Formats: sequence, structure tokens, C-alpha cells
Amino acid sequence: MVQVDTQAFLDDLYALRQIGAFKTGVSRPTYSAADMESRHWLVDRMAEVGLAGSIDGIGNVFGKTSRPGPIALVGSHIESQIEAGWLDGALGVVAGLALARSGLAVDVCAFADEESHFEGGYIGSRSIVGDLSEAQMDASRSRDRQQTLRDALASAGLAGRERVQIDPARYRGFFEMHIEQGSQLEKDALKIGVVSGIVGIWAWSIVVEGQQDHAGGTTMAERRDAGLSAVRLLAALDEVFPKVCGPRSTWTTCNVTFEPGAPVGIIPGRAEIRLEFRDQSMAVLERMEAALAAVVQESNRRERTKATLQSVNKSMPVICDSEMIAALAKAAQHHAGTEWQHMPSGAGHDAKMIAKKLPVSMLFVPSIGGVSHHWTEDTSDEDLALGIQVLASAVETYLAGR
Amino acid sequence: MVQVDTQAFLDDLYALRQIGAFKTGVSRPTYSAADMESRHWLVDRMAEVGLAGSIDGIGNVFGKTSRPGPIALVGSHIESQIEAGWLDGALGVVAGLALARSGLAVDVCAFADEESHFEGGYIGSRSIVGDLSEAQMDASRSRDRQQTLRDALASAGLAGRERVQIDPARYRGFFEMHIEQGSQLEKDALKIGVVSGIVGIWAWSIVVEGQQDHAGGTTMAERRDAGLSAVRLLAALDEVFPKVCGPRSTWTTCNVTFEPGAPVGIIPGRAEIRLEFRDQSMAVLERMEAALAAVVQESNRRERTKATLQSVNKSMPVICDSEMIAALAKAAQHHAGTEWQHMPSGAGHDAKMIAKKLPVSMLFVPSIGGVSHHWTEDTSDEDLALGIQVLASAVETYLAGR
Repeated sequence: MVQVDTQAFLDDLYALRQIGAFKTGVSRPTYSAADMESRHWLVDRMAEVGLAGSIDGIGNVFGKTSRPGPIALVGSHIESQIEAGWLDGALGVVAGLALARSGLAVDVCAFADEESHFEGGYIGSRSIVGDLSEAQMDASRSRDRQQTLRDALASAGLAGRERVQIDPARYRGFFEMHIEQGSQLEKDALKIGVVSGIVGIWAWSIVVEGQQDHAGGTTMAERRDAGLSAVRLLAALDEVFPKVCGPRSTWTTCNVTFEPGAPVGIIPGRAEIRLEFRDQSMAVLERMEAALAAVVQESNRRERTKATLQSVNKSMPVICDSEMIAALAKAAQHHAGTEWQHMPSGAGHDAKMIAKKLPVSMLFVPSIGGVSHHWTEDTSDEDLALGIQVLASAVETYLAGR
Repeated sequence: MVQVDTQAFLDDLYALRQIGAFKTGVSRPTYSAADMESRHWLVDRMAEVGLAGSIDGIGNVFGKTSRPGPIALVGSHIESQIEAGWLDGALGVVAGLALARSGLAVDVCAFADEESHFEGGYIGSRSIVGDLSEAQMDASRSRDRQQTLRDALASAGLAGRERVQIDPARYRGFFEMHIEQGSQLEKDALKIGVVSGIVGIWAWSIVVEGQQDHAGGTTMAERRDAGLSAVRLLAALDEVFPKVCGPRSTWTTCNVTFEPGAPVGIIPGRAEIRLEFRDQSMAVLERMEAALAAVVQESNRRERTKATLQSVNKSMPVICDSEMIAALAKAAQHHAGTEWQHMPSGAGHDAKMIAKKLPVSMLFVPSIGGVSHHWTEDTSDEDLALGIQVLASAVETYLAGR
């Protein structure tokens, strides 16, 4: 059985943690100086473990093995949210290095901007599967609207470079190791999650238009209060979603804004709701969409305001490959006994994009307290070491076709 | 019976409309160049109608009559919201000029900053009744936090001037003419509103604290969603307020904010609600307060979040003086036949502050379309002319003690 150098794996993770360090986490927004330093660091590490590494025109760091096939692709992303944890993304990339060091036939990739600092999102993994056009790149700006993607790439020294696409014939599949970003494993004292699939995320905007008016001069019977209609609509969703959801569905009203949003004295003339729901089942997603549309329609029947539902994003659910799941489950059983489970991923990941070209799978390790996207995010060294052992064994099994 | 020079009254209003003109309205924020130009213009107009006018240390423009008593105080404010209508405030000040011109024994005052461009609010009418300390002035900043009140006064050339206080013994009462800022009069084709009282405005902040989490990784059963608790709390208020309110109560959720308020992916960890309710009856206000407190308490019993209710402002309702109401009603009957009504004021006015020292009353004229605090605010010349006739007759009757 393949042996992983656990200490070298942890040493790499701790070295990467120093680049863009923020408190106990990191701050490496895509194409920032810290992010680019980490990408060049990664190219150097790839050379050490026998991979031919380079950075392409979207910032993807791609390292190719010279070993004979069959080959697995392993990776994740290396940039972070602005004040984020040290493991999210970085773990799956450094895991690839550890597997290459152990002698497994793996290519390793760090995809650019999984964290969506730039409009469009997942631009690295989309680029590598041929799902990012030059025109989309021309149009993309940073989330804070301060910089175009083209300017950011130029500042990072990446302008004019070719963009690599993966050759599906080269790989048997894609493995992504990741922190759970939830507390399901911790709550049940489990060490490994073998991911069954990645949820579809359907995000929506609901704009409610009414009439801005004086909060004292306008009687209750006359009002066209956009804020009140938004509240009633959200209360209706709170009633109806539990009746149509699946056992692991999530739904979240992430933001509500009232205009003008004065602290006192003015009836809101406009409200905007940003909400999302997630599930692994298309049937459940479609039921929830129908329920949402019905609630908006009912709002327009009852209220003196006009609510408009708009789809912001509809990412499709991805089912992980059954043979890869079996290899991960077998390895988990071997290394972790009963301390593992099958589970869906409630978050989106690069694997979702790669699934357009390759069979994919994911392995989760516990997040302490379930924290993610925050600098306090953490996982114990023991759990990280167990995770990399499970991943290596699974990749070995899978590539051997056993 | 007293005769008003209606044309001179309208000429004054139209002349004032030119100062800080914005589209068909005006923009005269307190202590701006346009506002100060209007105050100096007013001092000149006061001289023309036999009043000794001056500007004091808070910007109040005060004009004293030399006629023998009994004397009425007449006025309102002259500054405006940033892009506002031409009549709000200005009408009540120019009405005072018209009454002085007609030979009535009136002092006229334009109170500074009824529109609350500076923290604290109503600083002019509060100053004149002795309810604004030097320490409060030291602490006050502009609503946009860009300027201290002291700096604004210095820039306007008012630093170091004494602040005038009214001598209650000098006056029989205070009259304020104002646009309705609602559509009750227009809806019933009425021309005059005799104000029975000014509502109390009780404004609140409710902060809901939960736990910010990943919207995919955190199951519905685990969440402590501050946004959802805020929605449920507001939906509960929408159920309970109609059961405890009075016939003319209003309640408004003016703003809701979620933190971090991401468009997607993050469960809100904190929400803040800004709401207010208004009524003329203390009993109703107290019932609504009790209902609000109970809903917050019930939220804390049911939810996994912590809601905290805080009072932001509690202005007390003011009942207009019955003898002044009778004089206004008699004059309305005389000039407008049946086209008038008694009605409460849903908005706050300087009269509310002056009520601490003097009997007060107000007269409303229709707002076209109910619009106020917007540059399209308007009232027909005919309605303005009728209103000033009613006011003049009422003041004459009241001062004569008939």
C-alpha cells in the first residue's frame, strides 16, 4: 500500500499558511500579491515532487506527472476569501503534492478564483473545461467593481498567456480533498466524509416595487409598502419550503435591502431579497422553484406592490462517480474504521466544473466548530494526516482498477 | 374682517422658491448657502411688513411686531430636505409675513433645521423653548457625519450669536400653517384640515443576533439565522399591530439590514430592524409598545437567536388647543363651507416643540397627490389663497377672544 509522507504534507500546508498570513488564517484574494506568491511557491513545490508545473493565462497552476498512466487529476484552489482560513482550497492542492510525492500517478491543479472575487465565478475550473470564453473574460470585473479581470491578469503578469484545457483522455478521474465547512462530522465524532454529490445552488433576486411615502401622512389603507410585502413574502416561504424540501435541502435569505432605508419616517418604495436554495436532487430543486414562483405570484395577487422573481444562478447538482466513491469508502473503512460516513456537499466546489469532463469525487475532513470562510477555520493535524492517508489509498485503489 | 393681500402672499412664496431652486422644488439644507440666503431674504421681508427681524445663534429668524397685544406667534421652518418641495415649511413662514402685512398682531419665526439635517432634530424650535443645551450643540453632527453643528454655524456666520428664547407671557398661542403631506384632504375633495393634534412618534431598533455560517454546510436544524428570526418577528408584528392599534395609527418598518448581507452563500449572523409607530393617543401608543415588547419576548422564546429591543425616540403626542381649534373651525366654515375637516397630523412639526411653552394649533392645505419630501410636492394657488384667508380670520378671532 502507498505510503504518504505525512510530515512533508503538513510542512507544505504550514509553509503555504505563511503566505498572506492573517491572524491564524490567510488573506490571499485572487491575483493579489500574496495569491501570486503562493502560485509561484506551488510551481516550485511541484518541481520538488516530480511535476512539471506552470501558470496559465487564467492563473491556473497546472503540474503534470511524467509517470505512466492511468493518471488521476487532484486539486482545488489556492486563493482565499479576504480574511479566511488556511485550509479551504489550499488543502486539496497540497494533498495533490503529497500524492505525487508518494509515487502515485497524479497531475495537480490549483484552479483560479473558486472564491469568485471576479464576476462569473469559478473562472479557473471553468477555463480548464472550456467553459470560459474570451468575451466572458472581457466582461468580468472584480466583485467590488474596482478592477477588470483583464487588468488584474495583466498586473499579475499573466496577460497574453495561453489557457490550458484538460485532456479527458489523460485521466481516470478527479479527486478533491476539502474541509467539510459544516459540523456534521464533528457532531457525530466522525473523521472522514465520502462525498456522494455536490448540491445544485439556485440563487434568486426578488425585487418588490411599491410607493415611497411619508410614514406619518400615509394611512395604512393607502400604502404600497414594498418592505412589508417583502416580509410577508419571506414569511410565506418560511411556511411553504419545509413542505416541499428534501431531507438535506437548505434555503437561506442571504440579504434584504429596503429603499430608501431611512431609519425613521419613510415607507420603503422598493425592496430587494437575495435568496438561495440547495439540494442534490433536481426533482427537489424544481419543486422548490415552483413553490417560490407560486409565493411570488400569490404576493402579486394579494398585495398592492409588484414582486418580480429573477434567477441569478442555477448551478446543477453533480453526482460523484460510484467507482471513486467505492474506492474512497474502502480506504476510509481501512484507515478510519467506523468513523466515516457518506454525505453530500452543501457547498459548491471546483469538482462541480471538472465534472463536465471527468468523473469526480470529494473527500471531507472535519471543520472544527463547523467554521469556514473565517480566519478561525481549522482542522487538527491528526485529522489532516488521516485524510491524506485515506485519499492516497483511494487513488491507488482506483488507478489500479481494483 | 381682516383682509389678506393674497397676491403679495403668493409673490413671497414664489420669490422664496427661486432661492435654492431644484427642478420645480428647492434644495436648501440647513445652513447651506441657499438656506442662509433665504434667511437673510426673510429678514428683509420682515422689515417690509413692520417686523423687527434678526437671526440668532441657532439660525432661527425671529421677527417681532410693534403692535400692541394680544399677540400670536406664527411660523414654521424655511430650510428643506436635500431635493424637496417648495412649500413644506416655507408656507408657514410666509403665512406669518402675510398676517403681519394684513395688520394682525403677530410675531413670525422660521425655526432652524426642522428637517433634522443635524443630529438631535428640531434644534431651532427646541432652542427657542429652552430645550437645547450648549453641550447638545457641541455633540451634534450633520446626518452625513461630515460636519459638526458648531462648524456649520461658524461657516454660516452665526458663531457666538445669542440664542433667543420666547417669552410665553408675550403670546396667546402659536399657529403653524402647513401642507398636509398626505392625501386625506384630496381624496375627500376637502380644502382645509383643522389639526386636532400631532401624533407621538415612537421609533425603535431591534437587533437580532445569531450565528454567521455557510449557507450550504449548515443544516436547517443547526442554524441560528438572524435574518429569518427578523422576518418572523416582523410577520408577527404584521399580525398583532392591527389588533391593538387605533383608527388612525400608523406603523412602518423603515429599514432592515442583514449582516454580512452577501448576495449568496452566507447565513446572516446579525439583523437590525428600524421601525416606528405613530398615534395621537398615549393609550394606543402604550398598547402598541406592549405588543411590540411581547413579540420580541416571544421571538426569544421560540428562536435560537437573541433579539434586543431598544427605544430610539419617543416623541409625545400633542393635543392642539381647543379654543384655537374652534377659531380655525369657525374660519374654515366661513371661507370653505363644508370643504374642511378636523384631522390629526401624522408628521412631526415645530408646533410640537412650541407646545412646551404655548397653546398651539395647525392648519393644513391639500398636498397634490399626497406627495411630500420630494421636488414634485405642490399645492394649487387657489388652495394656498383659501388657506391663508382661513388662517387670518382664525387668528383675528382668537386674538379678539371671540
